Amino acid sequence: MTLTTEGFRDHFAAGGRAVNGWCAIPSPVTAVILARAGFDMLTIDLQHGLIDYQTMLAMLQAMSASAAPKLVRLPWNEPGIAMKCLDAGASGVICPMVNTPEDARALVAATRYAPLGTRSYGPMRAGAIFPDYAARAGDLVQVFAMIETAEALRNRDAIMAVEGLSGVYVGPADLGLSLGHVPSLLPEAPEVLGAIAEILASARRAGLLAGVHCGSGEMVGRMLAQGFDFASLSTDAGLFTGALRAALAAARA
Amino acid sequence: MTLTTEGFRDHFAAGGRAVNGWCAIPSPVTAVILARAGFDMLTIDLQHGLIDYQTMLAMLQAMSASAAPKLVRLPWNEPGIAMKCLDAGASGVICPMVNTPEDARALVAATRYAPLGTRSYGPMRAGAIFPDYAARAGDLVQVFAMIETAEALRNRDAIMAVEGLSGVYVGPADLGLSLGHVPSLLPEAPEVLGAIAEILASARRAGLLAGVHCGSGEMVGRMLAQGFDFASLSTDAGLFTGALRAALAAARA
Amino acid sequence: MTLTTEGFRDHFAAGGRAVNGWCAIPSPVTAVILARAGFDMLTIDLQHGLIDYQTMLAMLQAMSASAAPKLVRLPWNEPGIAMKCLDAGASGVICPMVNTPEDARALVAATRYAPLGTRSYGPMRAGAIFPDYAARAGDLVQVFAMIETAEALRNRDAIMAVEGLSGVYVGPADLGLSLGHVPSLLPEAPEVLGAIAEILASARRAGLLAGVHCGSGEMVGRMLAQGFDFASLSTDAGLFTGALRAALAAARA
Amino acid sequence: MTLTTEGFRDHFAAGGRAVNGWCAIPSPVTAVILARAGFDMLTIDLQHGLIDYQTMLAMLQAMSASAAPKLVRLPWNEPGIAMKCLDAGASGVICPMVNTPEDARALVAATRYAPLGTRSYGPMRAGAIFPDYAARAGDLVQVFAMIETAEALRNRDAIMAVEGLSGVYVGPADLGLSLGHVPSLLPEAPEVLGAIAEILASARRAGLLAGVHCGSGEMVGRMLAQGFDFASLSTDAGLFTGALRAALAAARA
Amino acid sequence: MTLTTEGFRDHFAAGGRAVNGWCAIPSPVTAVILARAGFDMLTIDLQHGLIDYQTMLAMLQAMSASAAPKLVRLPWNEPGIAMKCLDAGASGVICPMVNTPEDARALVAATRYAPLGTRSYGPMRAGAIFPDYAARAGDLVQVFAMIETAEALRNRDAIMAVEGLSGVYVGPADLGLSLGHVPSLLPEAPEVLGAIAEILASARRAGLLAGVHCGSGEMVGRMLAQGFDFASLSTDAGLFTGALRAALAAARA
Amino acid sequence: MTLTTEGFRDHFAAGGRAVNGWCAIPSPVTAVILARAGFDMLTIDLQHGLIDYQTMLAMLQAMSASAAPKLVRLPWNEPGIAMKCLDAGASGVICPMVNTPEDARALVAATRYAPLGTRSYGPMRAGAIFPDYAARAGDLVQVFAMIETAEALRNRDAIMAVEGLSGVYVGPADLGLSLGHVPSLLPEAPEVLGAIAEILASARRAGLLAGVHCGSGEMVGRMLAQGFDFASLSTDAGLFTGALRAALAAARA
Repeated sequence: MTLTTEGFRDHFAAGGRAVNGWCAIPSPVTAVILARAGFDMLTIDLQHGLIDYQTMLAMLQAMSASAAPKLVRLPWNEPGIAMKCLDAGASGVICPMVNTPEDARALVAATRYAPLGTRSYGPMRAGAIFPDYAARAGDLVQVFAMIETAEALRNRDAIMAVEGLSGVYVGPADLGLSLGHVPSLLPEAPEVLGAIAEILASARRAGLLAGVHCGSGEMVGRMLAQGFDFASLSTDAGLFTGALRAALAAARA
Repeated sequence: MTLTTEGFRDHFAAGGRAVNGWCAIPSPVTAVILARAGFDMLTIDLQHGLIDYQTMLAMLQAMSASAAPKLVRLPWNEPGIAMKCLDAGASGVICPMVNTPEDARALVAATRYAPLGTRSYGPMRAGAIFPDYAARAGDLVQVFAMIETAEALRNRDAIMAVEGLSGVYVGPADLGLSLGHVPSLLPEAPEVLGAIAEILASARRAGLLAGVHCGSGEMVGRMLAQGFDFASLSTDAGLFTGALRAALAAARA
Repeated sequence: MTLTTEGFRDHFAAGGRAVNGWCAIPSPVTAVILARAGFDMLTIDLQHGLIDYQTMLAMLQAMSASAAPKLVRLPWNEPGIAMKCLDAGASGVICPMVNTPEDARALVAATRYAPLGTRSYGPMRAGAIFPDYAARAGDLVQVFAMIETAEALRNRDAIMAVEGLSGVYVGPADLGLSLGHVPSLLPEAPEVLGAIAEILASARRAGLLAGVHCGSGEMVGRMLAQGFDFASLSTDAGLFTGALRAALAAARA
Repeated sequence: MTLTTEGFRDHFAAGGRAVNGWCAIPSPVTAVILARAGFDMLTIDLQHGLIDYQTMLAMLQAMSASAAPKLVRLPWNEPGIAMKCLDAGASGVICPMVNTPEDARALVAATRYAPLGTRSYGPMRAGAIFPDYAARAGDLVQVFAMIETAEALRNRDAIMAVEGLSGVYVGPADLGLSLGHVPSLLPEAPEVLGAIAEILASARRAGLLAGVHCGSGEMVGRMLAQGFDFASLSTDAGLFTGALRAALAAARA
Repeated sequence: MTLTTEGFRDHFAAGGRAVNGWCAIPSPVTAVILARAGFDMLTIDLQHGLIDYQTMLAMLQAMSASAAPKLVRLPWNEPGIAMKCLDAGASGVICPMVNTPEDARALVAATRYAPLGTRSYGPMRAGAIFPDYAARAGDLVQVFAMIETAEALRNRDAIMAVEGLSGVYVGPADLGLSLGHVPSLLPEAPEVLGAIAEILASARRAGLLAGVHCGSGEMVGRMLAQGFDFASLSTDAGLFTGALRAALAAARA
Repeated sequence: MTLTTEGFRDHFAAGGRAVNGWCAIPSPVTAVILARAGFDMLTIDLQHGLIDYQTMLAMLQAMSASAAPKLVRLPWNEPGIAMKCLDAGASGVICPMVNTPEDARALVAATRYAPLGTRSYGPMRAGAIFPDYAARAGDLVQVFAMIETAEALRNRDAIMAVEGLSGVYVGPADLGLSLGHVPSLLPEAPEVLGAIAEILASARRAGLLAGVHCGSGEMVGRMLAQGFDFASLSTDAGLFTGALRAALAAARA
């Protein structure tokens, strides 16, 4: 079953899994290369990626021939940019540093229409893509809160109890850093791996989706096997850099 | 009398009315098409429009041959972007979701120089356009608070009592949504139309200007007749889409 | 039957007609507005439009969700830009000022792979869009020569005898100018209308497709009824300007 | 008398002189800084400047509030780009390396409408700026041929006899290089200075305007005193670099 | 000793001084002109400059051949943009309007990794430029708080006591405005000059670096002599404008 | 020995070899990823790559911290763009489709200053990068003619006899196509491999450098072993696409 924006929740409800492609390079051309490579879903990173809103719009437009859901990781939990990304037609947002239930409520407020939230109405591109958007936005928009600090870990159940979240997303590097470890997308410390498992368990109990950022294909496979609904596969820049080095080594061998 | 940035308040004080052109397409070329079409004033929408700061700057530059005031609708009530838009030479801002007097005070703080507010000084482009800007900014800059929620409706008189506002701007779609109706730029529900009239009445009492977003030329005419000082005529994207469909239908007839 | 790049010739061979949307505004956002409006095919104008290669690429990418063929009008009969447009995935080119059989042969050389032409191989985006592109390019790429001068009118049969052309495209403004009339996309001079009819007749005899640029929907209907395979409906900028003026007049009425 | 596009020839016919600002930096913001600094006319350099068509368009748009004529130096004597620059609203072109009467005729062909030339009709932005453009283009468009090689120097009278030129423009660096000297915008070699004087004398005899590129304000004054109609004052990049170094030296003194 | 990102603190600890170049023009080309002109350090102004994130990234990239530290003045004390600028490889930030210790703590939180702050980990470009970035970020990143209001002046010692600041930066125009004077980068009022001296004295006591914005080379020299570690020399736009006017005057003399 | 622009010829004269990175993606960010990956030299492809001049300039700027020579493949043998690329600081050009000695002479004319050629003087960025550029351009600029058709193969010795060429570059796909084979960057047909060997042999006799485009690291190794001075390793887009597919397959395994 192909994952789509319209069928996002059904896909996972039916036990589907997804590999998420991660766009950190500010280029519609590389975005399309990702979109064609076969990822189940895609995320444009406005936080650590080198991308801002106008480039994100060009990337969304360029990827429009792909049915895969296209999420945006927000730069921060700020309502202005959250609403702009959704108006531009993003299938959802991943919000960094949701550490408290208040953070989660602010995120929901910015991304859900009344009465659940206070998102302002004006879905400029989203409304052109999705017929009857106002009525369907609750289903078409996914809202993920990142659990990536010690504080968030402690508050995870209270955060996940906030109505309006679609799920949570684990950032292993920040989580590790916050727990006193060297930040890494390939965490090995038992404390960090344990924390990841606890977040997943909480999500399962709360009936929320759970995603996680991974530093390798191996880790993606492991995390999906562990029960995560979706897992992000490194970044475009990381995979590209690795490929160039390998090709150069082969050429010089 | 042609509406200008310098004569903004005098125009309306003398009973003038204005039709506002609404730029949601991120393009200096379409911006100039609007500027040449004869609108009395123009607004670049950084909230629901597909436009960010750098493109807005290019649009302001491209429209510089037009004397019409060029406002910016802010993405949110955030001081950083508000100040940047004014430094870039915008004739004023329209700020979404001003729901409380505190919101209004924050808006004024970000857009007025001391002692009224705390806008930081450095009018990079504004100072090059307007001689003696520091002394005249109080007159050259218009600050509009959007009244577009049930909460703002209740607080409207307190909001309008905040010193430093030039006027209010009604967003019928969000206002309707907040009141439990389907969001529309062509509101028909008596409750919404009544709320619009109440906001106008409050503005009249407070001595503030009042503008409103309209979904059609007919509504613009009606709202101006009702007493609004200015009314926005749909959006560039909306008018463009309608024109293409009509032309295609004519071609195929 | 929906017109597509793959089915371009079959559509017309089966008697299909097409209304062509004309993009002169350098914006991926307006391009998509055209693509969604229902045109059968679209052309990005790199000659008189305000568009260059890099923006054209962004426009092609943005319109990728539409199945409509997307042609490019070249800035001039120059091989470098012709090849770049096709490599970028354009469904074909419309080349201005093809006045002699030599011009036509140069155009074919630049747009057809060996042995018919000398187009260089490297379909960067085209190859990613169209599987097996090298073998199918002869069918996937349409090449139109503009007949728009008195000289071209005299040479029209010799031009149309050049192997590799898909058809001809009439530019009424330049044709009129060359014949001594005021340039217009709504030609009324019998000499110009007669010349257009002669070009169409020659195309029919040569077995080539024939398109024409029109200044109104009425003219599109008339030209299609006269036998043209496709007709372009004004320009995006022209339709947009007209729509704004009409809406403003309605608002002020 | 302020120099304008409409009054270009009258200004010089009345004995007016002009200092030309030279834009080599690809930025609408720096273009406006030049436009506000008080130059009588401005030229955007698409040859040696770091600017291509799309950026030039943005620069022309940004400078639209200035009445000063805005010329474009073409990258080369190629009809495609020449026509695009004029369609974009440039007040004229300066064409490099016009070495023969054939070169001059090709330049005129690309920049003049029939019957004098074969410029294609479609003044997208020019037509929006200048009412009745088709009829007035002969006056509104200035065409300058650069005389900047030994070959051009020999052919100067034949070049200047080609109908349709507005004038000539001397490039001292290339002229010096071609005559065997080190290229410089501040030529001192008597042979080069003599050649410049001969070109000016030929222009006077032919009834053509004459401009020259200068490396300093002193040279501008000298060349205008010598009889040149207009003189370009270094480049934006050159003046900017010099200013920064001087300011730094002052700060460190 | 050349000032570098790695040796930033050592340079000043050894008594070094620095002249800071100020980029307000949104252009990688002008940025490089500054970088080549010999400034000891450079700052890209996202507050009053006409620059946003994506352009800042291009400017940082373009200046990458220069060893000079490249700071960014933030548009506001907002964590999202602060982190994005550092991830893009900026050598530090200058944050406007730090008026209270709470403001300073928020700034440190956004710019320092745990345990000192809560900066999110993902140094996309910074990590590629600086090996071992996670461990060295505390040294590689400079955080300057702007002291530029009467409130900040009163709170200066408490602000400077916040752990994690590298230093303070004085904005004379806003400081003067806040104290009731006409805003100026060349302050003459004794009250303003006295306030600047007090801020410097506090910084010295607190062991923090101190920088100041200056409107002329003379003032730079004076401020460095007074004890400031670094001083910014006007702006690129200001120096450029002045240079053009002077060159024009020379040409017309 | 690290390959540099200044030491380009010495490197190869000393028996050095080079692996060339190929930029077809229009992005300064991906360009830098290539520049950091360790290629000995880099080429920005303006022909089949999705890149035009303005983006190329941004890519050159972004890669300025790398000492590796940066060549540009021209879109076509046209003097305007050839000169602009060199003025922008490219270390040389690779020109497609040089089929005759006349083609080669035209290429040299466009890329060499007098007396060897007629390149116009104005090295805007090149002059800022390379001190004393006018005198050294003959050494700093490399000019490669692509031998990639049956006609060029026949004329190869006459082409290589044209003074001013630095070397030749083989395009196996076009060469194969011209010889009647399916175009491929991994040629296997003995006729094509034989032609490649003959071109190399001619270059050796003529004392010219020889490069070749390769579809894999293995082919790069083979071609360098065969005697080519440098070999291009696929394209950025090709390597990136391959890497994504491999990573996805690993994740799903």
